[in-house]
Order: sequence, then C-alpha cells, then structure tokens
Amino acid sequence: MEVCQVLHMNGGRGEKSYAQNSLVQRKVISMTKPIAEEAITNLYRNTFPASLAIADLGCSSGPNTLFAVSELVKAVDEVRRKLGHQSPEYQVLLNDLPGNDFNAIFKSIVGFQEDMRKQMGDGFGPCFFAGVPGSFYGRLFQRKSLNFVYSSYSLMWLSQVPEGLEDNKGNIYMAGTSPPSVLKAYYRQFQTDFSLFLKCRSEELVAGGRMVLTILGRKSEDPASKECCYIWELLAVALNEMVLEGIIEEEKFDSFNIPQYTPSPLEVESEVEKEGSFTIDLLDVSQVNWDAYDEEVHQSEAFKDGGYNVAKYMRAVAEPLLVSHFGEAIIDEVFSRYGEIVANRMSEEKTEFVNVTVSMTRKG
Amino acid sequence: MEVCQVLHMNGGRGEKSYAQNSLVQRKVISMTKPIAEEAITNLYRNTFPASLAIADLGCSSGPNTLFAVSELVKAVDEVRRKLGHQSPEYQVLLNDLPGNDFNAIFKSIVGFQEDMRKQMGDGFGPCFFAGVPGSFYGRLFQRKSLNFVYSSYSLMWLSQVPEGLEDNKGNIYMAGTSPPSVLKAYYRQFQTDFSLFLKCRSEELVAGGRMVLTILGRKSEDPASKECCYIWELLAVALNEMVLEGIIEEEKFDSFNIPQYTPSPLEVESEVEKEGSFTIDLLDVSQVNWDAYDEEVHQSEAFKDGGYNVAKYMRAVAEPLLVSHFGEAIIDEVFSRYGEIVANRMSEEKTEFVNVTVSMTRKG
Repeated sequence: MEVCQVLHMNGGRGEKSYAQNSLVQRKVISMTKPIAEEAITNLYRNTFPASLAIADLGCSSGPNTLFAVSELVKAVDEVRRKLGHQSPEYQVLLNDLPGNDFNAIFKSIVGFQEDMRKQMGDGFGPCFFAGVPGSFYGRLFQRKSLNFVYSSYSLMWLSQVPEGLEDNKGNIYMAGTSPPSVLKAYYRQFQTDFSLFLKCRSEELVAGGRMVLTILGRKSEDPASKECCYIWELLAVALNEMVLEGIIEEEKFDSFNIPQYTPSPLEVESEVEKEGSFTIDLLDVSQVNWDAYDEEVHQSEAFKDGGYNVAKYMRAVAEPLLVSHFGEAIIDEVFSRYGEIVANRMSEEKTEFVNVTVSMTRKG
Repeated sequence: MEVCQVLHMNGGRGEKSYAQNSLVQRKVISMTKPIAEEAITNLYRNTFPASLAIADLGCSSGPNTLFAVSELVKAVDEVRRKLGHQSPEYQVLLNDLPGNDFNAIFKSIVGFQEDMRKQMGDGFGPCFFAGVPGSFYGRLFQRKSLNFVYSSYSLMWLSQVPEGLEDNKGNIYMAGTSPPSVLKAYYRQFQTDFSLFLKCRSEELVAGGRMVLTILGRKSEDPASKECCYIWELLAVALNEMVLEGIIEEEKFDSFNIPQYTPSPLEVESEVEKEGSFTIDLLDVSQVNWDAYDEEVHQSEAFKDGGYNVAKYMRAVAEPLLVSHFGEAIIDEVFSRYGEIVANRMSEEKTEFVNVTVSMTRKG
C-alpha cells in the first residue's frame, strides 16, 4: 500500500488535496448531491433511527470535508421537521488515511456545529463527530454500527500499484499503447480492492443501511479510453520529454505507474453483484470539466488559466507519487511542462472527467 | 471555557503535556491500573459483549496516550482467552479538546495495532480506533454507545475559571489565605462541572457500563489543604517576587487564577450520589511524589534535579495559562524562579500529589 498511502497522505493536506478539496470535487459533490440525499432521506423515512451514523470515507481535509456530510444531515433534518419527528442523534465518522490532517478538521468542528445549530434551529441534533484513521480497504468500524456510508472521489485509488506492469513502458497509467497484460493487471487490482471494500462495509452497515459512492471512472468499456486516461497520458508526455532531454532516467520513467483505476459503470455493478451483500438502487454517470472554473466563472482570469488550474490540482494528486519515485528536484519542471501541454489540449478539445455514482442498500 | 481550552490544547501537545505524558501521569496510570482492570474485566465477565467500546477522556497526545487503553484491552483479552471465548470487537475512542494533537496519535496507531496483534496472537480483536474532539463537559458520543469510560488526570480541570474570585489577591489558586467566598466559588464550579460530566456519561454508557476516573485531589476536607494547593502556592511565590520587583503588574497578578479543583474523595462521592445514575464500586486514594523520578531512578542525575523536573512539567501545564494572561516575555524567568523554589522545598519536606480514583457502574 505504500505508494497509495503516500498519495492519500498528501492528498489529505489542505489545498494540496485532490480528493475533496478541489473545485472539481466540490462540483462533483454538488452534482451527485440529489442521489446521496435521496438515499439518506429514504433510509430515514424507512427506519426512523434514533441515531444515525454516517461515515465519509476518504474525507480529506479542507473546505469540502464537512460540506458533503452537512448537506446529508440537512436533508434528513428537513424531512424529520416536515414529519414532525424528534431529531435523531447524528454520528458523523470522518475517515481518511492516518496521514490526513485531522487536526485541521477537528479545529473547524466547533464552529461548524454552532453554525449548524443556528441554521437548523431548536430541536436539531445533537451531532457528534469522530475521526477514524485507516485505509478503507480494511475494517474501520464496529460490526453493524453504520447507517450510511458516503465516499466521493476516493475509491479510484487502488491499495497499491498493481503487480505485472513491466510492459507498460512509455506510459504511467493505462493507455492506448498499454499491452493487454497491463490492462488486466490494473483491472484485477481494482476487483481485489473494490470487493474487499464492499465486504468490509457490508459487515459495518446495518441491514437496510445505504451506501453512495462516487468514483472517478469512464463511460466506455475500454479501460484505456481517452476519457479516463488522457489526463495521465499528458503527464506521461511531459515526463517523456524530460527523458529525451536526459533530465529523467529512462528506467526510472518506465517503472513509474499510477495506482488508480477508473472503472466503468458495468465494472462497478459487476463487483457489487459478485460480492452479493448489496442491491444497487441507482447507477449514474456524470461529467465535469477538467477545469471546473470553466463553467463557474466564464469571464474571470481563472478561465484563461485553465491549463494552470488543472496542472495545479493534478500536482496536488501526483506530486507525492512523483517525489517518492523521482525525487524532489524535477517537480517544478514537470508541472510547468504539464500545465502548458494541458492548456494546449484544452483549447482544442472538450476535456471532461467522468464520474460513476452508485447508490446501494445493504441486504437484510 | 477559554482559559481551560488553551490549557488543554497545549497540554495535548507531545512532551508539553501534563495530563497523560509526564512521568507522574505514567506512574498514576500504573498505580491505578488494578482498579481499572478489575472494573473492565468484571464488566466483561458479567456481560460478554460482542463489541466493547472504551472511551479515554482527556487522552492527550504522547507515549502514555495508547498505553492506558492498551492495558485495559490486554486485561480483557487475557480473561477471554482463559475462558476460551471469541474476542469481542474493541472500539477505542480517544477524546481530548479539539486542539489536541490527534494527528500524532493517529500516525502511531498503525504500528500500535500491529504490536498488539503480535502480542495477543491470533484470535485477538479487531480493535478499532477513533478520535473524538470536544470538551467532556458536554455530550461526545451517541446514546448508550459506550461500555467503559476511563479518564486519568484530566477531571481536575474545570470548564472555566470560577466567577467570584476577586478577593483571592496574592494567590493564584485556593490557598490558606483565600477567603471562604473564593473556596466556595471553586467548589461550586467543580460541582457544576462534575455533575454535568456525570450526566453526559450516564446518557452515553449502557446500563451496567463501568467508569473509572482518577482525579488529582486531596485527602483532607480542607479545600485549601497544602497537599493539593502547595504546588500552586509556590508558583504564586515566584510571581509575587516578580510583582515586588516591578516585572509583573500587581493588578495583572491579582486577576490570575488557575481553573482547577482538586476534590476530596467525599466531594467526589457526594456528586456521584446527587447525580444518581451511578453506584460507586470503589473509592481510592493514592499518592505519588511530585518528582516521579525520585522513586524511579534514585541514583541518577534526574534525582538531583527534582526541582527542575517538577518545574518542567508544571511549566507544560501552566505556560499556556500564564502566556494568555501575562504574555510571553516573563515565562522563562517565572519558571527559573519556580524551579529554585520547588527544589528548595523538596529538599526539606516530602511533597506528594494525591490521586482520588473512583470506580462506578451505570445503574440498570
């Protein structure tokens, strides 16, 4: 798990975060909000639990961390007020790897709780918070202790770089030129990791409990499809240039691969069915521009700097991986080149991330 | 709560910690271990819970943080192995104020879990960890979600400096020269805080759940007794000197008071009975030298530096309080003088802290 740990650990630090704290992720949370809210309010209406334990897996640390969960809590509170019920006790469990900056989250919780109490008025809560450090590819919570599991933009990260990628020379992720053995190795790792994830969560969720996962993925059944691999291919272009110029050793480059898998809806569905503990209520695909500013603030400076923005948050994702493999020295150069390459491509074509969202129920 | 928050926040940072991470506290944990172990193994034998949730309130951050709880888990595991039972799932909930260094704790948990698995062998656990930020003078956990509550050397801290201490001039804590109104104000604050603590925990513990608290206290019924107040009186001596020398303003000094209360066993018992949710199983008083090195390493350098050691850990406790009241500039001078004063007194008399330990059961 080492590489992935490093990655998540860095990903969890403030603005250096990919997972939860980029504008892209904020957009994704908002876009998939109706699905998560439908799931949790449905759960609430069906069971009226006296206490409601919600886990956010891969919560990261930054402005988005409490945003996602608070929207869920608000949705439930709205329903319970309409129905004239007493508020459940909320237990919010924030999980990420042990290197995540939980201190920063914890310091913001007191103010956050006060804001919520003000917004929701009397009769709300209480709402308790806890931080749970550890990999979600393992058990994290007590048996049957969760009502709702939420995870956004975290589950595309594998537990490790797959084994058997020796023939992926010239690439750093799945690509059009990757041999079938490489695509298979990536897929196998995804299957192993995702099925373990499902098994662990099935033990932790109560019967009837709900889970909504949003994963960076793809629409196509081709795992090397441009829609999911292009962003990494462009980073490989930058690294390749530097190999040709003798700045990076070729062998170093050839042994570098990203521990990520961007599944199709069908691949997600297939693992859920194989594992067997969950029924799928909804499977959704959505898209978000590489540069989320694009849609948000058309006229601003940010718009013109799309390449820079994308390079910036991709740097937050990839930097720890690159540093641990290549060392510190090349990083500025890599991302300066990457920013230019990305800006160039973005001006010529529409570039989007694909999100696969799955909403499911723990079988009774 | 501000002053106390500052204090706890600093107290929670590594070696700067009073609560859990001084040698004194380590000794206290070891001394009171039989009481806590008796309580938790008794709980286990009586209920054989499939999962066992243990909360450590005021866990701080440092080498003692996981030590206390791990001893409890080991004690249960020994009993369950002897009885040939399956291991319960352990849920360890580590609480301190939001300023505590939870990141440091979380980074040590993975190694700690591995060590435990090795020590305990197959069939142990799983043992899950979570960090719970917040004041224990308020609800922290879901209703009826805890089996065991543990707290060592934290509950003498009040939620705030009591109101009505205007007449405590020349002192910084309860002292022989404090007027009765000051002693009453301190006691009232203790009653308010401790009864709120009991009420909150009574809601969070399951029926039959156990709670073991060790509080820095006193044996005597005199709240201004030397056994609990002397250590602060000596700090007042140092500050008084500096007032006389014009280094500290007299008014500043007169308005400074420590938010602590060191109760007698009877006072603890009385609040527990008044609150009414718990039966007391055991009430114990123990003593530990001001300078814990004294008993541990008689012949070492440390022994000769008793005054320095005591000043050092009292600095960790009092520095944030002093800084927020007097500013940064005087601190080195204060503790240099304090060290000398303490060393002087320690050479002339036996100086001990008194610990009050109470073991109780949540009524059914």
